[in-house]
Amino acid sequence: MPMNQQILLASRPDVVARAENFRLVETPLPHPAEGQVLLRHLYLSLDPYMRTRMDDVKSYAPSAVVDAVMMGAVVAKVMESRNPKFKAGDTVLARQGWQLYSVSDGRDLSVIDPSIAPLPWYLGILGSGGATAWVGLFDIGEAKAGETVVVSAASGSVGSVVGQLAKLHGCHVVGIAGGPEKCGYCVDELKFDACIDYKAGNLLADLQAATPKGVDVYFDNVGGEILDAVLTRMNPHARVPLCGTISQYDKTQAYGIRNYRSFLVNRIRLQGFVMSDYRDETKNAQPKIVQAVKEGKLKYRVSVAEGLAAAPEAFLGMLKGRNFGKQVVKLA
Amino acid sequence: MPMNQQILLASRPDVVARAENFRLVETPLPHPAEGQVLLRHLYLSLDPYMRTRMDDVKSYAPSAVVDAVMMGAVVAKVMESRNPKFKAGDTVLARQGWQLYSVSDGRDLSVIDPSIAPLPWYLGILGSGGATAWVGLFDIGEAKAGETVVVSAASGSVGSVVGQLAKLHGCHVVGIAGGPEKCGYCVDELKFDACIDYKAGNLLADLQAATPKGVDVYFDNVGGEILDAVLTRMNPHARVPLCGTISQYDKTQAYGIRNYRSFLVNRIRLQGFVMSDYRDETKNAQPKIVQAVKEGKLKYRVSVAEGLAAAPEAFLGMLKGRNFGKQVVKLA
Repeated sequence: MPMNQQILLASRPDVVARAENFRLVETPLPHPAEGQVLLRHLYLSLDPYMRTRMDDVKSYAPSAVVDAVMMGAVVAKVMESRNPKFKAGDTVLARQGWQLYSVSDGRDLSVIDPSIAPLPWYLGILGSGGATAWVGLFDIGEAKAGETVVVSAASGSVGSVVGQLAKLHGCHVVGIAGGPEKCGYCVDELKFDACIDYKAGNLLADLQAATPKGVDVYFDNVGGEILDAVLTRMNPHARVPLCGTISQYDKTQAYGIRNYRSFLVNRIRLQGFVMSDYRDETKNAQPKIVQAVKEGKLKYRVSVAEGLAAAPEAFLGMLKGRNFGKQVVKLA
Repeated sequence: MPMNQQILLASRPDVVARAENFRLVETPLPHPAEGQVLLRHLYLSLDPYMRTRMDDVKSYAPSAVVDAVMMGAVVAKVMESRNPKFKAGDTVLARQGWQLYSVSDGRDLSVIDPSIAPLPWYLGILGSGGATAWVGLFDIGEAKAGETVVVSAASGSVGSVVGQLAKLHGCHVVGIAGGPEKCGYCVDELKFDACIDYKAGNLLADLQAATPKGVDVYFDNVGGEILDAVLTRMNPHARVPLCGTISQYDKTQAYGIRNYRSFLVNRIRLQGFVMSDYRDETKNAQPKIVQAVKEGKLKYRVSVAEGLAAAPEAFLGMLKGRNFGKQVVKLA
């Protein structure tokens, strides 16, 4: 009889998250009660927000619990159903965390059509990642054709979709990413107009060269020094949808944003956002992204780690920018 | 025959603005041509924005010109009119700068009714200062009854109106000002719920005590460390109308905002604004402020420097927070 495997939050990070903060345990296979389904997890999504949940600080969602299973979205197969809404064999999107099996009462499950794209895409571009890109770019950033859009973490799960959607919309798109390989991907594969390697050491000058007409929308995934640099290039009435601050997660003291005055001089609107506040906008965005994917208009790159035991290292690598595109773990 | 006196921008500040950056000159009295009026200036408005105009940097308005008259709003009397829209004896609001007399073709003049309030009030609460408070608090900040509003430079020309309008609207109002005298004025005279003396050295703890329900609107006139402190107290979906960054004007390196992540976690909307973008909102706001002034619902404090020659020191003192309320110069 198979056992379940789970990865628990073993301890909270001091400053930098490490492998020791996780613990792999074996537990008995759960049995679905009346009204429940048994899920076998196929792919686990790894996302930057998980790092902030590991800390015991106020955020927009509860912290992860020490000695409990790490949270996370999964694509799963229904193995056994005692819930009339699901049948064995259904492929579902769930939020059951870093483990191989789980039971669910079905409330957080949605059945997906696995024929549209590879399964990991449902954890990113076809899931919250794609909706995040759309809502941030259009509903919050109000990007218009002809405007210049800059996006950081440009080759990543959200950034790569932001840039492609902006290109389809007629914007001038400049990515910011770490290293020549990621930048080459943004320009050659995703057809961004330019991509700046922030590790190359010429961020300000490179930004200036790549944004001759200034910046109208900065889709910020990283915060820190890169934001400070982009603030020097803002046009009047620019918008900054603030989606993440990954550059600051593993630091005791945050980088101080010095070019704050640009917000006043250029009458910039900055809006921090999390997707749970944008359910209507998400419902509007997702069919459009599905359609664009079906039409082959959006590319998407996935890094796959093999097996649950590989999840911690894959996660820690992602925080350091070692992944390429959407990071998932293949569980079965 | 009287002479005109003017104060010119003699030189741009290195870092800190000083008296040597200004020069008083005597010039012949100007004569109005056909279509013009001759103005005798009664009161000159001194405002923080003038400091940024002294630098040769990109801002939302052109820099001041070296060897030209410093810009600024004035209340003036029409001495002689060759323009059918004005008659001798009219009291007008004009933007003719740091001088005793000027001629105008009338395009930037508006006749005021001097019976509503003391003349300096037209340079503040009844002019752009009052509209700035209203637009920032309601149109941008969307302050609602029952919410907590924090305002910096709280005893100043804009801040004092912000706090009083917020109180009239049913908000919990906390000011931040420099020194016990200004804080006492905000609480005792303006009826703020609390006022924090940022010079007392307990900014974070005092803020925490004064905002038990967190902060919903932070009307920011100063930027810098005070903004960073207020960011630790923000509620979800808080708004930051950004009106000024006076704390940073005389600095080579701006203070770095470290608590930037609060914008994301709390889904804050920050909006830098300048009033020239809000003409419709200004037209809506001004009659309401006039009405509240007529009804005696708004108090306003003015610091008066005597004579044009006193303008530079009064201006430099204002930048250091030495003034109390609206700073004007009495010219006649």
